[in-house]
Order: sequence, then structure tokens, then C-alpha cells
Amino acid sequence: MPTNKQIHLDNRPQGEATAGNFKLVTSETPALQEGQVLVRHHFLSLDPYMRGRMNDAKSYAQPQPLGQVMGGGTVGEVAESKSPKYQVGDKVVGMGGWQEYSVASADQPGALRKVDTTHVPLSHYLGAVGMPGVTAWYGLVKIIEPKAGQTVVVSAATGAVGSAFGALAKARNCRAVGIAGGAEKCKYAVEELGFDACIDYRQHADAASLSKAIKEACPGGIDGYFENVGGMVLDAVMMRLNAFARIALCGMIAGYDGKPMPMSYPQLLLTNRVKLEGFIVSEHMDIWPEALKELGTLVATGKLRPRETIAQGIESAPEAFLGLLKGRNFGKQLVKLV
Amino acid sequence: MPTNKQIHLDNRPQGEATAGNFKLVTSETPALQEGQVLVRHHFLSLDPYMRGRMNDAKSYAQPQPLGQVMGGGTVGEVAESKSPKYQVGDKVVGMGGWQEYSVASADQPGALRKVDTTHVPLSHYLGAVGMPGVTAWYGLVKIIEPKAGQTVVVSAATGAVGSAFGALAKARNCRAVGIAGGAEKCKYAVEELGFDACIDYRQHADAASLSKAIKEACPGGIDGYFENVGGMVLDAVMMRLNAFARIALCGMIAGYDGKPMPMSYPQLLLTNRVKLEGFIVSEHMDIWPEALKELGTLVATGKLRPRETIAQGIESAPEAFLGLLKGRNFGKQLVKLV
Repeated sequence: MPTNKQIHLDNRPQGEATAGNFKLVTSETPALQEGQVLVRHHFLSLDPYMRGRMNDAKSYAQPQPLGQVMGGGTVGEVAESKSPKYQVGDKVVGMGGWQEYSVASADQPGALRKVDTTHVPLSHYLGAVGMPGVTAWYGLVKIIEPKAGQTVVVSAATGAVGSAFGALAKARNCRAVGIAGGAEKCKYAVEELGFDACIDYRQHADAASLSKAIKEACPGGIDGYFENVGGMVLDAVMMRLNAFARIALCGMIAGYDGKPMPMSYPQLLLTNRVKLEGFIVSEHMDIWPEALKELGTLVATGKLRPRETIAQGIESAPEAFLGLLKGRNFGKQLVKLV
Repeated sequence: MPTNKQIHLDNRPQGEATAGNFKLVTSETPALQEGQVLVRHHFLSLDPYMRGRMNDAKSYAQPQPLGQVMGGGTVGEVAESKSPKYQVGDKVVGMGGWQEYSVASADQPGALRKVDTTHVPLSHYLGAVGMPGVTAWYGLVKIIEPKAGQTVVVSAATGAVGSAFGALAKARNCRAVGIAGGAEKCKYAVEELGFDACIDYRQHADAASLSKAIKEACPGGIDGYFENVGGMVLDAVMMRLNAFARIALCGMIAGYDGKPMPMSYPQLLLTNRVKLEGFIVSEHMDIWPEALKELGTLVATGKLRPRETIAQGIESAPEAFLGLLKGRNFGKQLVKLV
């Protein structure tokens, strides 16, 4: 039985998360029971929502238990199988967590899903053709519901969700405008991801200044906004909303450390008759097949070319995750495990 | 031709609105042209939305022009008619503004509507069976969409909108909880309006304290919230929202003077997957007939017994309006003109 290096949550953050919240643990992989499958993880997904689970607070997700493997999406290969449904060598996506191997029950619905790597690289099933891509799809298609020609905006535009959002919006003939941190990311958003414009929020000291730049990039105002960030960026976007705009509220990374992050002008939601909806994509499993089909086609045809930042080895997961929270990644943040 | 006393908007508020923003003007009523009707107003409606129109800011409504009659809803009696559609003595509701008489074009859709005062007193067509009642109906039925047994909350609970909201919610077998300013209003909300509980926000210095009182009144959490106020009350309610709660955003009277009024914890909209929608009832004319029918029946059968605060004479309109903005009214604020 192979040894299995794992990252546990050792203690909860006081304010900002640190490497000291995590602990590397080595264990043996257990012997399989009937119906179980041993998966060797090739890639681990790092996602902002994990920060929320590190707190012991009422939220949509159960808090990550202390002293257990950090939860998270994984792609890998079946290394051993006691189920007729899976063969050794099958490529699978699952929720294996921050570890090198995991054991899954083949009969548990949604635990594992076989994927085809002919046209889509395995790692993309954690990004553009996985949970982040479906997240973008749900917010755009089901909440923002844009018409051709409307302007839609996304924050964290070069991240896994943002880049999928851009491609999906362009496929619907929208004007797609991104907001990202840094000139390099903004250049990439326009030149590689197909955004019509991208604004570097780091060039702006306050919401009023950022809002002016948004006005230039969105001369017809904003009809839909996909929010990953919160704080100053949300304030600035809200000043440019058109009447009957829609906001898909997916993440508020700016507030994950518990710092106050008020919305400065909620009255704009009234004066512009805005519809705002918070959502979690895992509560909308019915739309996944349709979304994954479109996202897979966009990747296979080269219309969505997602970028990845890849850390090496399970030991690097905590630092890579902390970097993600600070926007140090460029595109989908992964940890390569083989 | 009768003389016609009017209140004009003379200048715009700097911060808080004052009596000095208004000006009393006396004019003659003009001679009628073919198709026109002269209405003698019995009651003028005073509503919080008027404060927003006094500012020269981008908003849903055009700003109230300076040097013209303040706009507003009126009920009255046809005093003279050059239209076959209206007879002298007909009771009508319209948007006659802050004056004793107005001239309306009988053929302009929506300008005037004949009403039946057999079972519903004329003044109620400006309140429970008028725009405020329909506002409550739209927010409850179309945005909150409550199921029987769910808990719905409304701020400014004894106002024209809030009292209709309570009756509509009880008709749907919801738990209806009000928030109002003062013990007398809260007593009235429970004893006369049928709310299951009512919380006096003036007893609470901050949102945390108010939130505790809300928790006691809403042991099962809050499924729907109808917002008339904003500020601390909104913050406190948001701490008690259930997953998938809906917020109908109708007014934010706390911010009408231009004071900052941030929403302290927008991340709760995400963690609870809240749907929030700002709306203006005049943009949803299609639902008015259905809403007015239900509201009229509730009033006629005594299930909705709205209270009114009545000021005497057009000269009293500015002070009555300023009092409304401070919550000095008790129920629907009207000005009696005959």
C-alpha cells in the first residue's frame, strides 16, 4: 500500500490565514473494501471558497473539521479498483481533498466521474470544464441572463471562473469587461481570453477612481455583474449599473479574513431596480451537464484557453493557497501531485 | 373659476429637507379644453418616494422640477367635465399633485381612475387600496413569494405599505413580524393590524441589539424581508436571514438625506444565497388589477383596517411631509383638502 501525504487543517485562522493553520501528515492508504476505488491524484484544485470553510462560522458550507484532510476537488487516475464500474487507469474527477490518494465509493452518486482527455486536458476538469466553469455558466446564464449587445463585467477576470465567464459572454455576443489586478493580467484578459476591455483595479486608490475607469470601458453602462471580490470593486461597479441590472454574487474574497467589507451604496440597488442573487453552484446540479457540454466545446475548439498556475507537490499546497487568496496566481491555481 | 392653492418645489434640499424648500402659490384653475376634466382634490397622498425626487440626482424617477407643483397622488371628485367619460360628482384617483384642483385629460391612459366608495372610503385609494397597498402586494407576492408557515418581516410596519403587507402575509398563513418606531406603533401593529409580533427599533442602540430582538420574534429565522428603511434595521434583519431568503427592496428612507448608509455585511447575501430585488411598483402596471382586487376585499371585509394621519389644508403639506420622513405619522399620511 502506498504512503499518502496529506494536508490537514490544524487550527483555525485568527484574521488572515497562514501556513501555520495547516499540517502535513503521512499515512498509509487503507485496504479497499468491495465497491471502493483507490484514486491517485494528479492535480488538486485550490479555490477561494476553501478560505470560508477554514472559519468556524455559520455559512453555506460546513466548516472544515480540524485534524482532518482539507476538502477539495481532484483529478486523477484509478490506481486500484474493487468496483466493476471503474478500471485501473480510468481518468476521474472527484472531491479527493488535499492528499495524494483517496478512496471513493463507486456507488455513491457524484463521488467520482469518468472524464475523457482526448480533447480536454485532465487538469481543465478542475477549472474551465469543472466547478469554476460551471459557476461562471450559472451566474451568467441563469442569473444575469444577458441579451446580445449588453455589457457584462466580471471581477477576478483571469481566474478560473472569470476566464470562463469571458468566453461564455463572448459566445452570447455580449460586451465582456474584466477587472483584474495588474497590467499583465489585464493584457492577458484582452489578448488571450477575448475580453473587450480589462481594468487594473490596482491603479485606483478608491472606488470613485475605479468607477471612472469602468465608465470608460463600459460606455453603455453595465447590465450584468459577476462578483468574485466584494469591497471597493463592488462599490465602483455599482455606480455604473444600468436600470434592471443583475448581479450574480459568487464570492467576496475581500472579506474572507473577517475584515469589515461594507457595501457603500445599497440604495443604488433600489434606484436601479437591481436583481442580486447569491448562489453556490453545488446547489444547482441540474444545470451541470448542459454547462459542462458548452464549456468542453469551448475548450476543445480553442475558444477558451484557460491559463494555469501549477505548484509542485502536496507540501506546496498551503503556500499556493495563501497566494491564491492574495491574487498571486495567474489563472486556475492547481497543485501537481505526480 | 376657483382659485387653486398649490405647493411648489422652490429649491432643493442641502442634506435634510426643510419647509423652506417649498413655496405656497395661488393661481386660477384654467378653463377646460375638450376632453378635459377638473378634479377637486379631497385628499393628497404624502409618500417617502417624494423625498428622492426633491434631489437633482440620477434616480428611477425624474427629479421634481423647480418652480412647479410637487407631484403626488390625489383622490377627489369631478368638479367640471368636458369629457363624456366623467360626470360631475364622480369619485376619481389620479396624480393631481400638491394642490387643491387639477386638470386631467380623460383620454390619457392612467391619468384618472373612477373608484367606488360603497365599501372602501375614498382616502384608502391613496393607501391600502392604492399605490402603497399594491407596492406591498408586489414585494410580497412577486419577489418574496412566501410559502404558508414562512416568516416574513417588514420595516415601517404601521405605515401604508407595512400595514397592507401584514394583512397580505396573514392571508397567506405566514408569520408576519413588523419593525416600527415606538411602543404605541408596535402595540397597534399586533392588536389592530394582525402582526404576530412587532419590534420597536428605537429600543435598540445598534444592529446587534436589534438583531437579538428579531431572533426572539422570529425563532425560525426570516424567509422574506420587505425593506422600507435601510441602515441599521437592514443590517439587523440580514443577520437573521434563512438560506434562500428573499429581500424586496422598496425604500431606504434612512438614506434620503444623503447621509452614508452602508450595508454592513453584504457577504450574508452570499452565504445565505439571498435573492434581493429593488423595484418600483409603477413599472409593474400589469399586476395592479389583481392586487387592487385583493386589497379592496381585505379592506371591505375588515381584515385590513389601515390607520391614517390626516393634516388639514394644503398649507400643512410641507410640515406633514417632513414629519413623515421622521416617522411622526401613524399609518398613511394624508392631507385633507376639503
